[in-house]
Amino acid sequence: MKHILDTNLYIGGGVDFVVVPLISPTYRPSVVPQFGSFSLEASLPFAKSDLDPLPSLWNTHVVGQISEWIDLDSPDEKLRKNSETAFKQELAWASYLSLRACILPTPKGDTWTNYARCANQFLQEHLKEMQLWLRIPLGKPDDDSKTLQTQDDYWKIWNSFRLLSDHNSKLLVTLDNLNTMPSDNSLNHWYGEPVAAFIIHTDSFLTRDGDNPKHLSEGIQKLITYFLNHYTQIIISENQLNCSKDEESHLETNSAEDSRIHRLLPYIDHVRSIYQQMDPLSEQERSQVAFRDVLHPILQPFKEISQSMVYSEQEKDEKKYMEYKRAICQALLDRVPDEEASVITTVLVVVGAGRGALVRTSLQAANETGRKLKVYAVDRNLNALASLYKQRESMGWNDIVTVIQTDARHWNAPEKADILVGELLGCFGDNELAPEILDGTRRILKKDGISIPSSYTSFLQPVKSSKLYSAVKAKEQILTFETAFVTKMHNVARLAPCQPLFTFTHPKRSIKESNRRYRKLQFVMPDVPESTMVHGFAGYFDATLYKDVHLGTEPSKATPDVFSWDEMYFPLREPICVHRGSTLEVHFWRCCDSTKVWYEWGVTSPSTSLVHNCNARADCVWLN
Amino acid sequence: MKHILDTNLYIGGGVDFVVVPLISPTYRPSVVPQFGSFSLEASLPFAKSDLDPLPSLWNTHVVGQISEWIDLDSPDEKLRKNSETAFKQELAWASYLSLRACILPTPKGDTWTNYARCANQFLQEHLKEMQLWLRIPLGKPDDDSKTLQTQDDYWKIWNSFRLLSDHNSKLLVTLDNLNTMPSDNSLNHWYGEPVAAFIIHTDSFLTRDGDNPKHLSEGIQKLITYFLNHYTQIIISENQLNCSKDEESHLETNSAEDSRIHRLLPYIDHVRSIYQQMDPLSEQERSQVAFRDVLHPILQPFKEISQSMVYSEQEKDEKKYMEYKRAICQALLDRVPDEEASVITTVLVVVGAGRGALVRTSLQAANETGRKLKVYAVDRNLNALASLYKQRESMGWNDIVTVIQTDARHWNAPEKADILVGELLGCFGDNELAPEILDGTRRILKKDGISIPSSYTSFLQPVKSSKLYSAVKAKEQILTFETAFVTKMHNVARLAPCQPLFTFTHPKRSIKESNRRYRKLQFVMPDVPESTMVHGFAGYFDATLYKDVHLGTEPSKATPDVFSWDEMYFPLREPICVHRGSTLEVHFWRCCDSTKVWYEWGVTSPSTSLVHNCNARADCVWLN
Repeated sequence: MKHILDTNLYIGGGVDFVVVPLISPTYRPSVVPQFGSFSLEASLPFAKSDLDPLPSLWNTHVVGQISEWIDLDSPDEKLRKNSETAFKQELAWASYLSLRACILPTPKGDTWTNYARCANQFLQEHLKEMQLWLRIPLGKPDDDSKTLQTQDDYWKIWNSFRLLSDHNSKLLVTLDNLNTMPSDNSLNHWYGEPVAAFIIHTDSFLTRDGDNPKHLSEGIQKLITYFLNHYTQIIISENQLNCSKDEESHLETNSAEDSRIHRLLPYIDHVRSIYQQMDPLSEQERSQVAFRDVLHPILQPFKEISQSMVYSEQEKDEKKYMEYKRAICQALLDRVPDEEASVITTVLVVVGAGRGALVRTSLQAANETGRKLKVYAVDRNLNALASLYKQRESMGWNDIVTVIQTDARHWNAPEKADILVGELLGCFGDNELAPEILDGTRRILKKDGISIPSSYTSFLQPVKSSKLYSAVKAKEQILTFETAFVTKMHNVARLAPCQPLFTFTHPKRSIKESNRRYRKLQFVMPDVPESTMVHGFAGYFDATLYKDVHLGTEPSKATPDVFSWDEMYFPLREPICVHRGSTLEVHFWRCCDSTKVWYEWGVTSPSTSLVHNCNARADCVWLN
Repeated sequence: MKHILDTNLYIGGGVDFVVVPLISPTYRPSVVPQFGSFSLEASLPFAKSDLDPLPSLWNTHVVGQISEWIDLDSPDEKLRKNSETAFKQELAWASYLSLRACILPTPKGDTWTNYARCANQFLQEHLKEMQLWLRIPLGKPDDDSKTLQTQDDYWKIWNSFRLLSDHNSKLLVTLDNLNTMPSDNSLNHWYGEPVAAFIIHTDSFLTRDGDNPKHLSEGIQKLITYFLNHYTQIIISENQLNCSKDEESHLETNSAEDSRIHRLLPYIDHVRSIYQQMDPLSEQERSQVAFRDVLHPILQPFKEISQSMVYSEQEKDEKKYMEYKRAICQALLDRVPDEEASVITTVLVVVGAGRGALVRTSLQAANETGRKLKVYAVDRNLNALASLYKQRESMGWNDIVTVIQTDARHWNAPEKADILVGELLGCFGDNELAPEILDGTRRILKKDGISIPSSYTSFLQPVKSSKLYSAVKAKEQILTFETAFVTKMHNVARLAPCQPLFTFTHPKRSIKESNRRYRKLQFVMPDVPESTMVHGFAGYFDATLYKDVHLGTEPSKATPDVFSWDEMYFPLREPICVHRGSTLEVHFWRCCDSTKVWYEWGVTSPSTSLVHNCNARADCVWLN
């Protein structure tokens, strides 16, 4: 009964959960039972009663710790079979207690296949929510001269564990920080991985005089900030607490527990203070936290009628409209010299005017530049136009603004436009059919007319993201892996600089020019660890609205404070392992037929994938 | 109209089909149409009318040949786009004619990704039966000094084509034999691949005086025999017929065609004579041709009641019973010395006696050795026992043979057995639950009793088989890739010598000994080409019936003329590419719980797969 910590004390002490061993560390199963049945006498006496603490607390406040001695790949067959028995037994106990997670010991030796299989068996069998957190040392312990595996080795162990378990989303990593400060390089492995918890040992803390005598180096503080920001739990481990060599120290009395929590409090306080010092999110950021790494299907501009809320959200993005205004101002000044400003009226068509944000922007630009303007506001969405009608009346725009409810591609304009403006850009540039829509409206633009945007380019970047991979897999349909998604990427490792993919320029030189595209890109990843996993590709865009006014999300020159666009995510059906310095070669196609536009993609180096989304079998953007 | 061959002439000439170009070789599409629509004027005049020959002949007797000039990966964008248009156009024409297949030109240059994608688009789009046969040169042309790709390169092109097309089963290979005799090494690549056709050029034929002036070297004759035996079509190509450089020679008149078929007849006759000289199959082999590479689920010994036909099939395998008789004779001689032959009665239990084949075998053994025998024939299958009852009466065995209808594992035997005999061996040894059944009957065997079989071992071997991969994929369920199958392997490349996996010995030393097994095997493939694909594993067995009498299918010592067992096939969900000399590491588990037995398997080198069939999620053998 004394073998595990008194959980109640800790919960009273203000922590979220405690990590406790499930079975006495000295217990070994004596019998190897047949058919997976366990001997009752063998297991019961070593487990603490499930009524203390209360069952609901086990579920919410306890993470189990699987015995360190267990070696499921031992060359000693007896030890291996005993280990299988004990492993099942401890996990069954944890399951019975409805624990939210168990920490699995670090794999021993140079093989762990059976370990991974047994973990996988448990995960497959238990459809409940319990997670397994594989403990992986980060760096070498400062005081240990034993030659441990390198961080590359540990990542490979984790990677192989994950592959053997078929990327089970309930299998995660616990990083055990053995150093005062892990190197950047060793951390590199873990971006984009499902790190459930980060263990700091009490001896990583430094001591100083003053209010909070225990504190961490600035490096570790930054690390903790990173992890807290990525939903990783922080575990403080009193050094003898989690080391297998000191296991006997568990045999303490409740009063010893009591003093331990008092010893730990200064450490907990310091970590809490790090959390409190974290940069607060802006209101905009806060509103989007819930959408991090959530997958959305790409927008169907001709199938979906935008809702009022969507317009409200769009219209909040002031910085975006400032850039549009700058572009329109410059276009107006270019078309009408100062001396003719009072004579010439510029005809401007807003394609997809919605509730009129770009109409207002255009009128502001005309006002600022002192140019005369006539605006046609065209949109298919009657509901949105209602609000624009009203505004037109109340603002006295009746003579200036004409509102037309139609598909701009089929509109018989009474006169040709000098300037065509539209919010047609998707987060991958051309993915909301800007090329097709602007082709369709080209005949209502004067020969020397200006299109805003005047060009746009999509960008691509390989990413590692176990989170996004799991999100795709969770949809349980093989074709989901061939579907492009829109997402706010958060728990993602970006593995190489972006490269430009497809460019469209408006107005087109010739209407015969196809909107199909094909391009091969080669990414070299010099900064990744020895090897890494590529789960898919992030997509961005950069648009030239007019001359030097650009707008975009491509990270190296993203327009600051603009939040209208998330990123594209193109998954790979089979994640690809790429070694440092080797080349990742990927092919992208933008395909069109008479009814739809879609992307196909495939990797040809270092290994060959299928061509994803062949003939739009998974998804497409409909043209009508 | 003169551009393609007059098919009627050839069909009259006694061939199965002719290969014809579909469009004039000089035609190039002049317009790049948008949205996949083709200009009617551009394509029609170059295609021969679909009414000559008759539509039904197009379907059965014509294989189309896609224009050689088409280059879907040309760096010249205009040529590439023209190629896409022409490629679609020719395939659409072939589709309209319901051709059974089209030969695709050999990929040019060092990239073919777009080519593979366009082929894949066609295959995905057309749900009909039309196949695409990618033409791959075999060896270098004797008269050509141009440096071509090596055979390794060509296999890699094919492999990458196949991967990009997601292993589409309608994508096959046509080998174009450019040499008088391809080396063994270059052929090695193509075993286990879907070779639809083998092209021999007329200049590969030698000339001699006599009845058939045209003949092929013995090497090529053997090759043709191999291909005919693997359902590969043989195409004879008059040299200028299929060479793109001589394309203009297609512009011939019908009378020129007429003389051509006369020129070709001697070549056709020679190939026909090779077919006629092939070793005829035995009756047994002939009856099994239809089952080659057909997948069957593994047998459920306790779920299925064998049918009369199954017994009839089993009983035909005389060689098997001869080996059983040899084993029983030796066991009888060992248990009863000559001097006590008339005194001692040996008690023999037949487990799973069925219609009594092993009862007869046992009585024959007793007769031959002059030993006295008492036989208990035990089986669950009442229907089969009916026939045994009758036989017992008609043969006067009433005093010797007792027939018991029960599950042998639960039988309360009136006396213990000296010898226990059973036909419990599956094609993987333990897969029909021999270990569990013999464990269950161990208590009715005397302490020094003999079990026949006394031990058995399963064997494993990595194989390449595009045929079996497609057969698994055709079931359209992801878990099928985690299912073990029984099959008569035919179109399979066996990539390394077999290795032993699990061994069971009877009677067991201790009943506590588990029937679970775990083993890691490492295969090195020294003889394969530079690289190869592993689609899965073949499983065999070898059993010791008693002392030196063995029975089995393991290729190096398979019992001749025994045909009761096919092979096991364990698929891999993702085929693995292995390079020559590298190690393929595979882990196999035999798992048991109280209701079932199943296998799990996974590869950990050169890359890591998932653990297949975790917790028997795809299949298992039920214990009851």
